[in-house]
Amino acid sequence: MSEPSSTAPLQVCAVIFDDFELLDVFGPLEFFGILGESTPVKVQLLAKGIGPVTSHQGPKSLADDTFSQTGTIDVLLVPGGRGTRELVNDEVFLEQLRALSSRSRYTASVCTGAALLAKAGLLKGIQATTNKRAYAWATSQSKQTQWKPSARWIRDGNTWTSSGVTAGMDMTLALIESIYDSASAEEVANRAEYLWNRDPKSDPFSATTD
Amino acid sequence: MSEPSSTAPLQVCAVIFDDFELLDVFGPLEFFGILGESTPVKVQLLAKGIGPVTSHQGPKSLADDTFSQTGTIDVLLVPGGRGTRELVNDEVFLEQLRALSSRSRYTASVCTGAALLAKAGLLKGIQATTNKRAYAWATSQSKQTQWKPSARWIRDGNTWTSSGVTAGMDMTLALIESIYDSASAEEVANRAEYLWNRDPKSDPFSATTD
Repeated sequence: MSEPSSTAPLQVCAVIFDDFELLDVFGPLEFFGILGESTPVKVQLLAKGIGPVTSHQGPKSLADDTFSQTGTIDVLLVPGGRGTRELVNDEVFLEQLRALSSRSRYTASVCTGAALLAKAGLLKGIQATTNKRAYAWATSQSKQTQWKPSARWIRDGNTWTSSGVTAGMDMTLALIESIYDSASAEEVANRAEYLWNRDPKSDPFSATTD
Repeated sequence: MSEPSSTAPLQVCAVIFDDFELLDVFGPLEFFGILGESTPVKVQLLAKGIGPVTSHQGPKSLADDTFSQTGTIDVLLVPGGRGTRELVNDEVFLEQLRALSSRSRYTASVCTGAALLAKAGLLKGIQATTNKRAYAWATSQSKQTQWKPSARWIRDGNTWTSSGVTAGMDMTLALIESIYDSASAEEVANRAEYLWNRDPKSDPFSATTD
Protein backbone atom coordinates (compact mmCIF):
# COMPACT_ATOMS: atom_id res chain seq x y z
CA MET A 1 0.00 0.00 0.00
CA SER A 2 1.20 3.50 -0.76
CA GLU A 3 1.55 6.32 1.73
CA PRO A 4 -1.48 8.62 1.82
CA SER A 5 -1.14 11.77 -0.25
CA SER A 6 -1.64 15.08 1.49
CA THR A 7 -5.02 15.50 -0.19
CA ALA A 8 -6.56 12.01 0.10
CA PRO A 9 -8.28 11.61 3.44
CA LEU A 10 -7.11 8.95 5.87
CA GLN A 11 -9.84 6.33 5.59
CA VAL A 12 -10.65 4.86 9.00
CA CYS A 13 -13.16 2.00 9.10
CA ALA A 14 -14.36 0.43 12.34
CA VAL A 15 -15.99 -2.98 12.29
CA ILE A 16 -19.09 -3.18 14.50
CA PHE A 17 -21.33 -6.10 15.43
CA ASP A 18 -24.04 -6.81 18.00
CA ASP A 19 -22.65 -6.68 21.55
CA PHE A 20 -19.56 -4.68 20.58
CA GLU A 21 -17.84 -2.72 23.35
CA LEU A 22 -18.78 0.97 23.01
CA LEU A 23 -15.53 2.61 24.02
CA ASP A 24 -13.34 0.18 22.04
CA VAL A 25 -14.85 1.83 18.97
CA PHE A 26 -15.62 5.41 19.96
CA GLY A 27 -12.45 6.19 21.92
CA PRO A 28 -10.26 5.63 18.85
CA LEU A 29 -12.81 7.20 16.48
CA GLU A 30 -12.98 10.33 18.64
CA PHE A 31 -9.23 10.72 18.28
CA PHE A 32 -9.29 10.15 14.52
CA GLY A 33 -12.17 12.62 14.35
CA ILE A 34 -10.18 15.29 16.18
CA LEU A 35 -7.23 14.59 13.88
CA GLY A 36 -9.66 15.36 11.07
CA GLU A 37 -9.86 18.98 12.22
CA SER A 38 -6.31 19.56 10.97
CA THR A 39 -5.82 16.91 8.25
CA PRO A 40 -8.32 15.09 5.99
CA VAL A 41 -9.81 12.06 7.74
CA LYS A 42 -12.93 10.06 6.97
CA VAL A 43 -14.39 7.85 9.69
CA GLN A 44 -16.87 5.07 8.86
CA LEU A 45 -18.64 2.24 10.64
CA LEU A 46 -18.89 -1.10 8.81
CA ALA A 47 -21.35 -3.84 9.79
CA LYS A 48 -22.87 -7.03 8.42
CA GLY A 49 -25.71 -5.00 6.94
CA ILE A 50 -27.07 -1.47 6.90
CA GLY A 51 -29.19 -1.11 10.01
CA PRO A 52 -28.98 -0.63 13.77
CA VAL A 53 -26.20 -2.44 15.62
CA THR A 54 -26.62 -2.70 19.38
CA SER A 55 -23.58 -2.32 21.62
CA HIS A 56 -23.10 -4.42 24.75
CA GLN A 57 -23.81 -1.30 26.82
CA GLY A 58 -27.13 -0.66 25.03
CA PRO A 59 -26.70 2.31 22.67
CA LYS A 60 -27.30 1.57 19.00
CA SER A 61 -25.15 2.69 16.09
CA LEU A 62 -25.93 2.84 12.38
CA ALA A 63 -23.34 1.47 9.98
CA ASP A 64 -22.25 3.60 7.02
CA ASP A 65 -21.45 0.58 4.86
CA THR A 66 -21.19 -3.21 4.98
CA PHE A 67 -18.29 -5.64 5.36
CA SER A 68 -18.52 -6.09 1.59
CA GLN A 69 -17.51 -2.49 0.81
CA THR A 70 -14.63 -2.12 -1.60
CA GLY A 71 -13.38 1.39 -0.83
CA THR A 72 -9.89 2.29 0.32
CA ILE A 73 -9.12 1.48 3.94
CA ASP A 74 -6.11 2.94 5.69
CA VAL A 75 -6.96 1.92 9.24
CA LEU A 76 -9.19 -1.07 9.98
CA LEU A 77 -10.30 -0.94 13.64
CA VAL A 78 -11.57 -4.15 15.24
CA PRO A 79 -13.17 -3.77 18.68
CA GLY A 80 -13.86 -6.33 21.34
CA GLY A 81 -16.93 -6.96 23.41
CA ARG A 82 -19.19 -9.83 24.34
CA GLY A 83 -20.16 -10.32 20.68
CA THR A 84 -16.69 -11.66 19.85
CA ARG A 85 -17.55 -14.91 21.67
CA GLU A 86 -19.95 -15.85 18.87
CA LEU A 87 -18.05 -14.24 16.01
CA VAL A 88 -14.95 -16.40 16.45
CA ASN A 89 -17.16 -19.26 15.20
CA ASP A 90 -18.67 -17.33 12.27
CA GLU A 91 -16.73 -18.42 9.19
CA VAL A 92 -18.48 -15.93 6.92
CA PHE A 93 -17.48 -13.06 9.21
CA LEU A 94 -13.90 -14.32 9.56
CA GLU A 95 -13.53 -14.49 5.77
CA GLN A 96 -14.88 -10.92 5.46
CA LEU A 97 -12.46 -9.78 8.16
CA ARG A 98 -9.54 -11.38 6.31
CA ALA A 99 -10.60 -9.64 3.09
CA LEU A 100 -10.95 -6.25 4.80
CA SER A 101 -7.62 -6.59 6.59
CA SER A 102 -5.76 -7.72 3.46
CA ARG A 103 -6.49 -4.42 1.74
CA SER A 104 -5.98 -2.16 4.77
CA ARG A 105 -2.68 -0.40 5.40
CA TYR A 106 -3.04 -0.95 9.14
CA THR A 107 -5.16 -3.39 11.12
CA ALA A 108 -5.71 -2.41 14.75
CA SER A 109 -7.62 -4.26 17.45
CA VAL A 110 -8.81 -3.22 20.88
CA CYS A 111 -9.49 -5.61 23.74
CA THR A 112 -10.89 -8.98 22.56
CA GLY A 113 -10.91 -7.69 18.98
CA ALA A 114 -7.54 -9.49 18.94
CA ALA A 115 -9.40 -12.79 19.39
CA LEU A 116 -11.18 -12.14 16.09
CA LEU A 117 -7.92 -11.30 14.32
CA ALA A 118 -6.30 -14.40 15.85
CA LYS A 119 -9.09 -16.76 14.79
CA ALA A 120 -9.05 -15.25 11.29
CA GLY A 121 -5.36 -16.14 11.08
CA LEU A 122 -4.26 -12.52 10.97
CA LEU A 123 -1.86 -12.72 13.92
CA LYS A 124 0.24 -15.69 12.75
CA GLY A 125 3.87 -15.44 13.73
CA ILE A 126 3.62 -11.98 15.23
CA GLN A 127 3.51 -10.39 18.66
CA ALA A 128 0.12 -9.29 19.99
CA THR A 129 -1.79 -8.50 23.18
CA THR A 130 -5.40 -8.40 24.28
CA ASN A 131 -7.73 -7.78 27.23
CA LYS A 132 -6.37 -9.17 30.48
CA ARG A 133 -9.81 -10.13 31.82
CA ALA A 134 -10.38 -12.53 28.92
CA TYR A 135 -6.75 -13.38 28.32
CA ALA A 136 -6.97 -17.19 28.42
CA TRP A 137 -9.96 -17.27 26.07
CA ALA A 138 -8.65 -14.68 23.61
CA THR A 139 -5.18 -16.17 23.35
CA SER A 140 -6.62 -19.66 22.82
CA GLN A 141 -7.82 -18.47 19.40
CA SER A 142 -4.32 -18.80 17.95
CA LYS A 143 -1.36 -20.89 19.04
CA GLN A 144 0.79 -19.28 16.36
CA THR A 145 0.81 -15.84 17.97
CA GLN A 146 3.45 -14.55 20.37
CA TRP A 147 0.98 -13.32 22.98
CA LYS A 148 2.27 -10.78 25.49
CA PRO A 149 0.45 -10.73 28.85
CA SER A 150 1.92 -7.38 29.83
CA ALA A 151 1.65 -4.56 27.27
CA ARG A 152 -0.59 -1.50 26.91
CA TRP A 153 -0.37 -2.07 23.17
CA ILE A 154 1.90 -3.79 20.64
CA ARG A 155 2.87 -2.87 17.12
CA ASP A 156 4.24 -5.63 14.91
CA GLY A 157 4.61 -4.48 11.33
CA ASN A 158 1.30 -3.01 10.24
CA THR A 159 -0.68 -4.85 12.91
CA TRP A 160 -1.50 -3.07 16.14
CA THR A 161 -3.18 -4.76 19.10
CA SER A 162 -4.10 -3.20 22.43
CA SER A 163 -5.15 -4.30 25.87
CA GLY A 164 -8.61 -3.73 27.26
CA VAL A 165 -10.97 -0.90 26.36
CA THR A 166 -9.17 2.39 27.11
CA ALA A 167 -5.78 0.97 26.09
CA GLY A 168 -7.15 1.35 22.56
CA MET A 169 -7.11 5.11 22.99
CA ASP A 170 -3.42 5.11 23.92
CA MET A 171 -2.69 2.80 20.97
CA THR A 172 -4.59 5.09 18.61
CA LEU A 173 -2.49 8.09 19.59
CA ALA A 174 0.66 6.01 18.94
CA LEU A 175 -0.75 4.96 15.56
CA ILE A 176 -1.44 8.61 14.68
CA GLU A 177 2.11 9.44 15.78
CA SER A 178 3.40 6.66 13.52
CA ILE A 179 1.39 7.73 10.45
CA TYR A 180 1.92 11.47 10.96
CA ASP A 181 4.17 12.72 13.77
CA SER A 182 4.37 13.28 17.53
CA ALA A 183 3.02 16.81 17.31
CA SER A 184 -0.16 15.58 15.58
CA ALA A 185 -0.78 12.94 18.24
CA GLU A 186 -0.08 15.38 21.06
CA GLU A 187 -2.44 17.93 19.53
CA VAL A 188 -5.22 15.32 19.42
CA ALA A 189 -4.58 14.35 23.04
CA ASN A 190 -4.59 18.00 24.10
CA ARG A 191 -7.82 18.78 22.28
CA ALA A 192 -9.45 15.78 23.96
CA GLU A 193 -7.89 16.88 27.29
CA TYR A 194 -6.57 13.33 27.46
CA LEU A 195 -3.63 12.26 29.60
CA TRP A 196 -1.91 9.97 27.12
CA ASN A 197 -0.19 6.92 28.55
CA ARG A 198 2.64 6.92 26.04
CA ASP A 199 4.66 3.90 27.17
CA PRO A 200 3.38 0.74 25.44
CA LYS A 201 5.21 -1.41 27.98
CA SER A 202 3.59 0.20 31.00
CA ASP A 203 0.58 -1.99 31.74
CA PRO A 204 -0.80 -1.55 35.26
CA PHE A 205 -3.51 -4.10 34.51
CA SER A 206 -1.28 -6.94 33.39
CA ALA A 207 -1.65 -8.85 36.65
CA THR A 208 -5.41 -9.01 36.30
CA THR A 209 -5.81 -12.32 34.50
CA ASP A 210 -8.78 -14.66 34.51
CA MET B 1 -35.74 12.34 44.65
CA SER B 2 -35.37 9.14 46.61
CA GLU B 3 -32.27 6.96 46.62
CA PRO B 4 -32.44 4.10 44.14
CA SER B 5 -33.57 0.82 45.62
CA SER B 6 -31.31 -2.20 45.25
CA THR B 7 -33.63 -3.61 42.61
CA ALA B 8 -34.56 -0.58 40.48
CA PRO B 9 -31.94 0.01 37.80
CA LEU B 10 -29.98 3.24 37.73
CA GLN B 11 -31.54 5.06 34.78
CA VAL B 12 -28.89 6.88 32.77
CA CYS B 13 -30.09 9.04 29.89
CA ALA B 14 -27.72 10.82 27.52
CA VAL B 15 -28.97 13.71 25.40
CA ILE B 16 -27.72 13.55 21.81
CA PHE B 17 -28.08 16.00 18.91
CA ASP B 18 -26.51 16.50 15.49
CA ASP B 19 -22.79 17.30 15.78
CA PHE B 20 -22.47 15.94 19.31
CA GLU B 21 -18.98 14.96 20.45
CA LEU B 22 -18.68 11.16 20.33
CA LEU B 23 -16.53 10.53 23.36
CA ASP B 24 -18.40 13.00 25.58
CA VAL B 25 -21.28 10.53 25.36
CA PHE B 26 -19.70 7.12 24.97
CA GLY B 27 -16.89 7.44 27.51
CA PRO B 28 -19.36 7.96 30.38
CA LEU B 29 -21.86 5.45 28.94
CA GLU B 30 -19.15 2.78 28.69
CA PHE B 31 -18.45 3.22 32.39
CA PHE B 32 -22.12 3.09 33.35
CA GLY B 33 -22.43 0.04 31.12
CA ILE B 34 -19.58 -1.73 32.92
CA LEU B 35 -21.17 -0.78 36.25
CA GLY B 36 -24.24 -2.58 34.92
CA GLU B 37 -22.39 -5.88 35.04
CA SER B 38 -22.52 -5.82 38.84
CA THR B 39 -25.57 -3.67 39.64
CA PRO B 40 -28.74 -2.89 37.64
CA VAL B 41 -28.18 -0.04 35.19
CA LYS B 42 -30.16 1.02 32.13
CA VAL B 43 -28.49 3.27 29.58
CA GLN B 44 -30.54 5.20 27.01
CA LEU B 45 -29.96 7.81 24.32
CA LEU B 46 -32.51 10.62 24.02
CA ALA B 47 -32.86 12.83 20.95
CA LYS B 48 -35.27 15.30 19.37
CA GLY B 49 -36.89 12.45 17.48
CA ILE B 50 -36.46 8.75 16.85
CA GLY B 51 -33.99 8.43 14.02
CA PRO B 52 -30.28 8.69 13.18
CA VAL B 53 -28.27 11.38 14.93
CA THR B 54 -24.89 12.19 13.38
CA SER B 55 -21.95 12.94 15.65
CA HIS B 56 -19.38 15.61 14.81
CA GLN B 57 -16.90 12.83 14.07
CA GLY B 58 -19.25 11.13 11.60
CA PRO B 59 -20.66 7.96 13.22
CA LYS B 60 -24.42 7.89 13.61
CA SER B 61 -26.37 6.81 16.68
CA LEU B 62 -30.01 5.84 17.07
CA ALA B 63 -31.94 7.33 19.97
CA ASP B 64 -33.95 5.03 22.23
CA ASP B 65 -36.48 7.73 23.08
CA THR B 66 -37.19 11.43 22.63
CA PHE B 67 -36.68 14.49 24.82
CA SER B 68 -40.39 14.21 25.65
CA GLN B 69 -40.01 10.88 27.44
CA THR B 70 -41.48 10.76 30.91
CA GLY B 71 -39.61 7.84 32.49
CA THR B 72 -37.45 7.98 35.59
CA ILE B 73 -34.04 9.57 35.10
CA ASP B 74 -31.30 9.18 37.67
CA VAL B 75 -28.41 10.59 35.65
CA LEU B 76 -28.97 13.06 32.81
CA LEU B 77 -25.80 13.31 30.72
CA VAL B 78 -25.37 16.36 28.48
CA PRO B 79 -22.45 16.22 26.04
CA GLY B 80 -20.72 18.99 24.16
CA GLY B 81 -19.68 19.24 20.56
CA ARG B 82 -20.04 21.62 17.67
CA GLY B 83 -23.84 21.22 17.74
CA THR B 84 -24.07 23.16 21.00
CA ARG B 85 -23.33 26.39 19.09
CA GLU B 86 -26.79 26.25 17.50
CA LEU B 87 -28.61 24.64 20.40
CA VAL B 88 -27.93 27.51 22.80
CA ASN B 89 -30.33 29.49 20.60
CA ASP B 90 -33.00 26.80 20.37
CA GLU B 91 -35.65 27.75 22.92
CA VAL B 92 -37.65 24.55 22.37
CA PHE B 93 -34.57 22.45 23.15
CA LEU B 94 -33.65 24.56 26.18
CA GLU B 95 -37.17 24.14 27.62
CA GLN B 96 -36.96 20.35 27.06
CA LEU B 97 -33.55 20.30 28.74
CA ARG B 98 -34.92 22.18 31.77
CA ALA B 99 -37.81 19.71 32.00
CA LEU B 100 -35.50 16.68 31.77
CA SER B 101 -33.07 18.10 34.31
CA SER B 102 -35.80 19.07 36.77
CA ARG B 103 -36.83 15.46 37.19
CA SER B 104 -33.33 13.93 37.18
CA ARG B 105 -31.50 13.11 40.39
CA TYR B 106 -28.21 14.21 38.85
CA THR B 107 -27.45 16.40 35.86
CA ALA B 108 -23.95 15.98 34.44
CA SER B 109 -22.32 17.79 31.52
CA VAL B 110 -19.15 17.11 29.58
CA CYS B 111 -17.18 19.75 27.69
CA THR B 112 -19.43 22.42 26.13
CA GLY B 113 -22.50 20.57 27.38
CA ALA B 114 -22.11 23.07 30.24
CA ALA B 115 -22.93 25.87 27.78
CA LEU B 116 -26.32 24.25 27.20
CA LEU B 117 -26.97 23.90 30.92
CA ALA B 118 -25.86 27.50 31.45
CA LYS B 119 -28.09 28.92 28.74
CA ALA B 120 -31.01 26.87 30.07
CA GLY B 121 -30.50 28.55 33.43
CA LEU B 122 -29.49 25.33 35.14
CA LEU B 123 -26.17 26.60 36.49
CA LYS B 124 -27.44 29.71 38.29
CA GLY B 125 -25.53 30.51 41.45
CA ILE B 126 -23.38 27.40 41.39
CA GLN B 127 -19.82 26.45 40.54
CA ALA B 128 -19.16 24.84 37.17
CA THR B 129 -16.47 24.19 34.58
CA THR B 130 -16.31 23.45 30.87
CA ASN B 131 -13.99 22.84 27.93
CA LYS B 132 -10.91 25.06 28.01
CA ARG B 133 -10.72 25.43 24.22
CA ALA B 134 -14.16 27.05 24.12
CA TYR B 135 -14.02 28.62 27.55
CA ALA B 136 -14.86 32.23 26.63
CA TRP B 137 -17.85 31.22 24.50
CA ALA B 138 -19.21 28.59 26.91
CA THR B 139 -18.93 30.78 30.00
CA SER B 140 -20.61 33.69 28.19
CA GLN B 141 -23.86 31.68 28.26
CA SER B 142 -24.41 32.53 31.93
CA LYS B 143 -23.14 35.42 34.01
CA GLN B 144 -24.74 33.91 37.11
CA THR B 145 -22.42 30.91 37.26
CA GLN B 146 -19.22 30.71 39.28
CA TRP B 147 -17.09 29.42 36.38
CA LYS B 148 -13.81 27.71 37.30
CA PRO B 149 -11.11 27.83 34.60
CA SER B 150 -9.03 25.15 36.30
CA ALA B 151 -10.84 21.95 37.28
CA ARG B 152 -11.03 18.44 35.82
CA TRP B 153 -14.61 18.38 37.05
CA ILE B 154 -16.82 20.10 39.61
CA ARG B 155 -19.68 18.85 41.73
CA ASP B 156 -22.05 21.41 43.16
CA GLY B 157 -25.05 19.78 44.77
CA ASN B 158 -26.58 17.41 42.25
CA THR B 159 -25.00 19.17 39.28
CA TRP B 160 -21.74 17.84 37.86
CA THR B 161 -19.78 19.58 35.11
CA SER B 162 -16.51 18.46 33.56
CA SER B 163 -13.81 19.88 31.37
CA GLY B 164 -13.22 18.76 27.80
CA VAL B 165 -14.00 15.34 26.35
CA THR B 166 -12.07 12.75 28.40
CA ALA B 167 -12.52 14.72 31.63
CA GLY B 168 -16.08 13.42 31.45
CA MET B 169 -14.79 9.91 32.02
CA ASP B 170 -13.01 10.92 35.21
CA MET B 171 -16.12 12.79 36.37
CA THR B 172 -18.29 9.76 35.67
CA LEU B 173 -16.14 7.55 37.90
CA ALA B 174 -16.45 10.16 40.66
CA LEU B 175 -20.22 10.23 40.15
CA ILE B 176 -20.37 6.43 40.40
CA GLU B 177 -18.26 6.67 43.56
CA SER B 178 -20.70 9.23 44.95
CA ILE B 179 -23.84 7.21 44.15
CA TYR B 180 -22.35 3.83 45.15
CA ASP B 181 -18.86 3.65 46.67
CA SER B 182 -15.16 3.81 45.84
CA ALA B 183 -14.88 0.08 45.26
CA SER B 184 -17.57 0.22 42.59
CA ALA B 185 -15.85 3.07 40.75
CA GLU B 186 -12.46 1.38 41.01
CA GLU B 187 -13.89 -1.86 39.67
CA VAL B 188 -15.30 -0.05 36.64
CA ALA B 189 -11.95 1.68 36.00
CA ASN B 190 -10.12 -1.65 36.32
CA ARG B 191 -12.46 -3.45 33.95
CA ALA B 192 -11.97 -0.67 31.40
CA GLU B 193 -8.20 -0.79 32.08
CA TYR B 194 -8.54 2.96 32.67
CA LEU B 195 -6.05 5.04 34.60
CA TRP B 196 -8.48 7.18 36.55
CA ASN B 197 -7.42 10.77 37.22
CA ARG B 198 -9.06 10.99 40.62
CA ASP B 199 -8.21 14.53 41.65
CA PRO B 200 -10.89 16.95 40.39
CA LYS B 201 -8.55 19.89 40.99
CA SER B 202 -5.74 18.48 38.85
CA ASP B 203 -6.30 20.02 35.42
CA PRO B 204 -3.23 19.92 33.19
CA PHE B 205 -5.20 21.59 30.41
CA SER B 206 -6.37 24.62 32.36
CA ALA B 207 -3.82 26.92 30.71
CA THR B 208 -5.14 26.15 27.24
CA THR B 209 -7.69 28.92 26.82
CA ASP B 210 -9.00 30.45 23.61
